Amino acid sequence: MLQVIPLEKGRERLASEAALRTVRAERAEWNRAAGRVLAEDIVAGEDLPAFSRASVDGWAVVAADTFGASASLPALLRLAGEVKMGEHASFALQPGSCAAVWTGGELPRGADAMVMLEEAETLSGGIVAVETPTVPGRHIVFRGDDTRRGTVVFSKGKRLSPRDIGVLAALGVSKVPVAKRPRVCVLSTGDELVDPSETPVGAQIRDCNGPMLTAACERAGAEVLLCSRVPDDETELLERMRSLAEYCDLLLLSGGSSAGEKDAGVRCLGALGEVFFHGLAVKPGKPAFAGKIGGSLVIGLPGHPAAACLMFCELVLPLLAALQGEIHWQRTLPARLAAAVPSNHGREELVPVLLAGEEANPVISKSGLIAALARADGYIRIPRDTEGLLTGARVDVILF
Amino acid sequence: MLQVIPLEKGRERLASEAALRTVRAERAEWNRAAGRVLAEDIVAGEDLPAFSRASVDGWAVVAADTFGASASLPALLRLAGEVKMGEHASFALQPGSCAAVWTGGELPRGADAMVMLEEAETLSGGIVAVETPTVPGRHIVFRGDDTRRGTVVFSKGKRLSPRDIGVLAALGVSKVPVAKRPRVCVLSTGDELVDPSETPVGAQIRDCNGPMLTAACERAGAEVLLCSRVPDDETELLERMRSLAEYCDLLLLSGGSSAGEKDAGVRCLGALGEVFFHGLAVKPGKPAFAGKIGGSLVIGLPGHPAAACLMFCELVLPLLAALQGEIHWQRTLPARLAAAVPSNHGREELVPVLLAGEEANPVISKSGLIAALARADGYIRIPRDTEGLLTGARVDVILF
Repeated sequence: MLQVIPLEKGRERLASEAALRTVRAERAEWNRAAGRVLAEDIVAGEDLPAFSRASVDGWAVVAADTFGASASLPALLRLAGEVKMGEHASFALQPGSCAAVWTGGELPRGADAMVMLEEAETLSGGIVAVETPTVPGRHIVFRGDDTRRGTVVFSKGKRLSPRDIGVLAALGVSKVPVAKRPRVCVLSTGDELVDPSETPVGAQIRDCNGPMLTAACERAGAEVLLCSRVPDDETELLERMRSLAEYCDLLLLSGGSSAGEKDAGVRCLGALGEVFFHGLAVKPGKPAFAGKIGGSLVIGLPGHPAAACLMFCELVLPLLAALQGEIHWQRTLPARLAAAVPSNHGREELVPVLLAGEEANPVISKSGLIAALARADGYIRIPRDTEGLLTGARVDVILF
Repeated sequence: MLQVIPLEKGRERLASEAALRTVRAERAEWNRAAGRVLAEDIVAGEDLPAFSRASVDGWAVVAADTFGASASLPALLRLAGEVKMGEHASFALQPGSCAAVWTGGELPRGADAMVMLEEAETLSGGIVAVETPTVPGRHIVFRGDDTRRGTVVFSKGKRLSPRDIGVLAALGVSKVPVAKRPRVCVLSTGDELVDPSETPVGAQIRDCNGPMLTAACERAGAEVLLCSRVPDDETELLERMRSLAEYCDLLLLSGGSSAGEKDAGVRCLGALGEVFFHGLAVKPGKPAFAGKIGGSLVIGLPGHPAAACLMFCELVLPLLAALQGEIHWQRTLPARLAAAVPSNHGREELVPVLLAGEEANPVISKSGLIAALARADGYIRIPRDTEGLLTGARVDVILF
């Protein structure tokens, strides 16, 4: 029998191990940085924008010159020049004059507002007739309006969105300090497993956990060095675990973790390193285990695909986030249960759900099925000290 | 002045153009298929699981043999053999006998239930004493329970999740039919723009739209062939647009789309091909335009980064989804407005929001700022025929 511990305790044990490791940083070119996790705070090295600029096409003016202007009595301003895009305004504006400035162009010294192109008319002799009064600050983005020099624009631990890449580009951060991708090896154990490209013979089955876990690790920002299989041969498993642990940050096993002949994974882990736990008070996922071999963390997931997927979400995702120093990695959504879910197993229970608007429909299926899980949008947690949840109960859906 | 059309009309025009194009398919290896869009329906070629199997470690039995069994009066069954993992059960079970089967192993013919390892005891002479009655079907996953041969498992147009990759692997779909990535060229126009790695001189600014749009296109599944800049030189712009349109599906321009000297993009589009629209009744985003050059679609986004980002979400994202045949691509979340948003521009308005629980806080900032937008979680649409939304109004937040 397994000596189970609460799921939360298992997660905490892994978190405390991750906390012992420093997040390794590297520089990524801006076009490779989206989706990566920032490894340093980004402090603005300059004001953004770096100069006060027009936010419309039109005429830079001294606002007071336009007060009282109308179509019948326009303010007549002398055109002092044009500000070319990308160039400094070479002249200062005197009262009674104006300058042509395009959107994004620099405001000449002395000017304090813009008049839009369609609010004025160009007369002969270099005179601009302004027909609508403007007020100081109108249609201008002042230097530093977006970001002031010295401001922490992004804190480390943020996963970078396309918009963040735009901000970094604007600030000239073209080589972005990001966390190195954790290196993961995925190993499925079982005599019955064949490659997805092979046709099973006898009672063989195709390995689906390996491909699923590989894709899930990559989505979480990890680099998967290897996705392979090993038969139920303890000597071979020991050798594979020993050699893989030498060059990855996380070794992910699946299958081979239930009681009986198939404790090989956890026995090998004990022989090669340290076992943190074997057995969690959670359904599904009871036979999960974890430990380390040297500096490599090892997590053993159940062989049932649905259980492997849920334990991946509960144990591996937070670990991969921690190894990258990522702060807000989990997305949850409040919802109401569309049907009651009984639960009296004395264990925490994880139940996949389908979302329909603000309702969460529990997906109840036999253990080990994968197609039903693929349709689910996320899952809910039912604490171990309850007897289930009633229809209409408020739940937090953890999105896949 | 621009001849504006409603945003919805502009989107519809692009959708009808996309509908004229067939989604091109290719085969991706399973380890490259996650995040891609399925180009064909996936029909199960076999039952899943392909044989009835045990979902626990224990003893395959004829359930009726165990009825009435207890610890004091166990059912004594003759052990007929062990089913090896990955191999067919070579024998049929007779009443009064049982077989050792591990989790995932094939159930021998004649057996209709499992007794868990801990519910029985092995006695001498090849006898197993079952102390707990079981019922037919218990702890068994029957052939086809997960998926039946001939079932449409996934419909085309679905973006593949890691769990989907697991299902495809289980079904032996190791080369996955996916939509080809749309090829996109990103071109920022403006004399004032320099590369993000350069230090601006005079009133130059670093190009932030190019990097932002590139990352956003890639996240939407596109392949960005080029991200470059072109000065405000109509001859050069015409030549670049002509040559780029020859080898991409979508040419994305930003900047240079407001009135005045900077209509060059839309004039070049008119000279090289067809203009669908120039000007949308939306704030921000009014100067957006679209058209085609030969088989290449062209979208001109505003130069203001925030406007470029929102118009990307409204025009480009649905187009990239359509070019990949993707069905459900937009994620929205219901929320309540935390503050009133006035709007009386006679145009539809797009307002970025920050989410806090179920509340959406409007992010009101000057046009053209990007750092404020980076902090937002999504945005809301305010229809053109309203005068804004009151505090507490129910809104759908379109997530970035």
